[in-house]
Amino acid sequence: MKSVIDILDLSVSELDGLINTALDIAAHPDRYAEKCKGKKLATLFFEPSTRTRLSFEAAMLELGGSVIGFSEANSSSASKGESVSDTAKVVSNYADIIAMRHFKEGAPLVAAHSATIPVINAGDGGHHHPTQTLADLLTIYREKGRLGNLKIGLVGDLKYGRTVHSLIAALSRYEGNEFYLVSPEELKLPEYVKKDAHNAHFVETSQLMSHINSFDVLYMTRIQRERFADKAQYERLKNSYILTPDKLISAKKDMCILHPLPRVNEISVKVDDDPRACYFKQTLNGKLMRMALILHLLSLSDGKRLPPLSGEVGVCTNPACITSTEQELPALISETDGVRRCVYCDKEV
Amino acid sequence: MKSVIDILDLSVSELDGLINTALDIAAHPDRYAEKCKGKKLATLFFEPSTRTRLSFEAAMLELGGSVIGFSEANSSSASKGESVSDTAKVVSNYADIIAMRHFKEGAPLVAAHSATIPVINAGDGGHHHPTQTLADLLTIYREKGRLGNLKIGLVGDLKYGRTVHSLIAALSRYEGNEFYLVSPEELKLPEYVKKDAHNAHFVETSQLMSHINSFDVLYMTRIQRERFADKAQYERLKNSYILTPDKLISAKKDMCILHPLPRVNEISVKVDDDPRACYFKQTLNGKLMRMALILHLLSLSDGKRLPPLSGEVGVCTNPACITSTEQELPALISETDGVRRCVYCDKEV
Amino acid sequence: MKSVIDILDLSVSELDGLINTALDIAAHPDRYAEKCKGKKLATLFFEPSTRTRLSFEAAMLELGGSVIGFSEANSSSASKGESVSDTAKVVSNYADIIAMRHFKEGAPLVAAHSATIPVINAGDGGHHHPTQTLADLLTIYREKGRLGNLKIGLVGDLKYGRTVHSLIAALSRYEGNEFYLVSPEELKLPEYVKKDAHNAHFVETSQLMSHINSFDVLYMTRIQRERFADKAQYERLKNSYILTPDKLISAKKDMCILHPLPRVNEISVKVDDDPRACYFKQTLNGKLMRMALILHLLSLSDGKRLPPLSGEVGVCTNPACITSTEQELPALISETDGVRRCVYCDKEV
Repeated sequence: MKSVIDILDLSVSELDGLINTALDIAAHPDRYAEKCKGKKLATLFFEPSTRTRLSFEAAMLELGGSVIGFSEANSSSASKGESVSDTAKVVSNYADIIAMRHFKEGAPLVAAHSATIPVINAGDGGHHHPTQTLADLLTIYREKGRLGNLKIGLVGDLKYGRTVHSLIAALSRYEGNEFYLVSPEELKLPEYVKKDAHNAHFVETSQLMSHINSFDVLYMTRIQRERFADKAQYERLKNSYILTPDKLISAKKDMCILHPLPRVNEISVKVDDDPRACYFKQTLNGKLMRMALILHLLSLSDGKRLPPLSGEVGVCTNPACITSTEQELPALISETDGVRRCVYCDKEV
Repeated sequence: MKSVIDILDLSVSELDGLINTALDIAAHPDRYAEKCKGKKLATLFFEPSTRTRLSFEAAMLELGGSVIGFSEANSSSASKGESVSDTAKVVSNYADIIAMRHFKEGAPLVAAHSATIPVINAGDGGHHHPTQTLADLLTIYREKGRLGNLKIGLVGDLKYGRTVHSLIAALSRYEGNEFYLVSPEELKLPEYVKKDAHNAHFVETSQLMSHINSFDVLYMTRIQRERFADKAQYERLKNSYILTPDKLISAKKDMCILHPLPRVNEISVKVDDDPRACYFKQTLNGKLMRMALILHLLSLSDGKRLPPLSGEVGVCTNPACITSTEQELPALISETDGVRRCVYCDKEV
Repeated sequence: MKSVIDILDLSVSELDGLINTALDIAAHPDRYAEKCKGKKLATLFFEPSTRTRLSFEAAMLELGGSVIGFSEANSSSASKGESVSDTAKVVSNYADIIAMRHFKEGAPLVAAHSATIPVINAGDGGHHHPTQTLADLLTIYREKGRLGNLKIGLVGDLKYGRTVHSLIAALSRYEGNEFYLVSPEELKLPEYVKKDAHNAHFVETSQLMSHINSFDVLYMTRIQRERFADKAQYERLKNSYILTPDKLISAKKDMCILHPLPRVNEISVKVDDDPRACYFKQTLNGKLMRMALILHLLSLSDGKRLPPLSGEVGVCTNPACITSTEQELPALISETDGVRRCVYCDKEV
């Protein structure tokens, strides 16, 4: 039995396997059209996310399986106060695999340890979103032919952007990657993300144009006005981060542009027809990787519950942590490198 | 043509048939995997209920059929004021069988008499919820090997709990059942429920622990704070009804614990690993019985509308009755044992 | 590649082809049960519409395909501000054909020119709803045996009723049709609708009963109280437009009564059992025509984007037009017969 909550739950060799499966699916979709016949995916989306949900549903249907689920919490029993753990136990009787999105950090981890079927984290608040990272990795691999020795520009909100944190964690397991962190001072990458990425080299700047000519990959994210204490600074900066055709003149001809979508206005529509624009291909790649992941996890599914989580029973003060609402669920605290963190939400305690 | 609105719409021999089918499905799921190929279930949920809806959907998919529907009223035409009768007529052109949940009492009965396909009541307000009772019955049968000669503790809100009323109605058709009614004074079982249960014996108490050692079945339900006029009494009582491991020490080793779910806190999570805890198995059994019921009703479906309901045209003053909103639908009144009731919601007039 | 946004996107010979296919499906449903195996319909409903959505979903399932989608905007990324164009591009990677309902006029046209799969307009605000017209046409054809030489009474809100405008546009391409426009002064058919219907003859009246005895087809629509500036006039008029059995006494025995549904009270339930009442059959016919249309468009689908729309770049002041919200989408203005209109919403500029 295996569940995927964090991109690091997958070893490098598992990642390579998923990429190979995804490429094979792309080349021979017919060979996979009945692989999950009679299997059911439950999409338990406690907060809405069309793209992710539709991608999971398309993935399961293209494998010949079917789908049940809900697309927001108020059409679920959550409004009656049912715990995530109970939902996972009940749905284990209705489906073969779960994709869960939840507004509470750690909720899919709780589900994974209550369910008797595999659980895929489809996004838990600002915490993890591993299948987005799988989409990013397959896109980079298909466009550049490798996952190492890359110069990657990461642009926008690097402080709160979970997709950026996961991508760095995943790519820093490969050799020779250099990250150019392009953000305003207020939205800089947190130190712990850099610290965990032993293999990688980092360059920090607030200027998108200063290094764009050396990027192999340009990863754009959204900057939300609400994140700025100093609105004047926001007004000063915002246009400098909007990608427009003129900013791409000095970029490499084979650079690839990624964005986790939805975009609001951080990439001009005029960029869409540039051959370097890969953000729509990225959504196709996300579906392929979700197909590969569903197959992988179903092959490891044995109907047995995962062993209990370990840690010292404690209290987590993060209001977004699942332990703040889940019935009879105390925080578990574990220590790494002298830092004590909540096992569910990873916040320092 | 047959629809199931009330558990008593099924005869004892039909119930036995459903139980046998459900056991056969559990033993040989593959034999049923294509039984409903090409058939469609419409899940018309005018109010949300994840568990019930997902259970119906899983049931239909495991029979090889497919599902259309909606999960709450505001994503339906109900917001434009369409009548339940019209919805049932329209959906008869789109599907082969309907599962309807509605906030108005009697709505599924109206649908059943307008549709040309079978209708299953998936819960109509505080009125009926027959497939929950089917889940309860199969669970008791699988755990205890019989549906008669049982001592059944019913705990919590026995006044408003429709699942309790239906379970008593269903089990009192079998010989030798004794019901222990455990509730605060304010939430006692209504007299008419007892009166209709000719075969059964009742013991009333406000103390869970007074008879727990003799129960074969312990059926827990939720007590809602809102139901109490006297909040102080609620605070005094609430803990005495919460099931915890210590309260189970004196109970029989083979007692089975049921709960219609979702639970809030009326059963401690610590009870879940007790082998007597059957409330998650109950959800599996619910799916199996829904599969059996779908098969049974489809086998009786002939495209003909049910004959019109009979009764004296009148007025029902129950604001939760479907006649309060349905276009051109007067109440029908029928008399049994000198009591005049609305045919739709069963309230005395 | 072909999409259907407006009923006039289909030629008369295509319409005839769809009607023939629909009749063949009705006669031999089994021959079509696997036609779309492995294909996916995306139902992108930015505003709720049960009937239309369930009809599309039933249609795709009866062709052996499957369905993904959402049923209202707040369970989609629309709440995060994603453009219609981006949604269409993303969903092109998940499905084979799109049915889109949107509250903005022109949104499905935008989608059709961004997607690489066919798009069917399932209703865009008060603008177009071509598959409703397909349902109307098949019903008239099946009931009357022809689409020309008919006397058609159109009753109710002829000013805002998009189904009426489309039906006139479609039927005026056949010879010999006469339209009786029955509406209060305030809700008269707009002049431009008449002007575009070259072939047809029109009679205007505010009295339903004045010509009912000559109608071959009676098309009822809803009159909304909100449409009346003069509420007293509404109260005076409303009953004269409600269809009741007594008003049908003088009508032809083989007249057929249509209504796009949902009705509120403009047709009495007592009319439902009259053999002339065809509004529930109409929903069946809608499903059959949607099946025929899905088959037709999938047969023309080649993965290529439609050529860009042409027109002079301008500004549309219609607040309901998609150009008022879509990212970097200026209005395009085109001129016909000296009238300049927005290409997206068709409003004069």
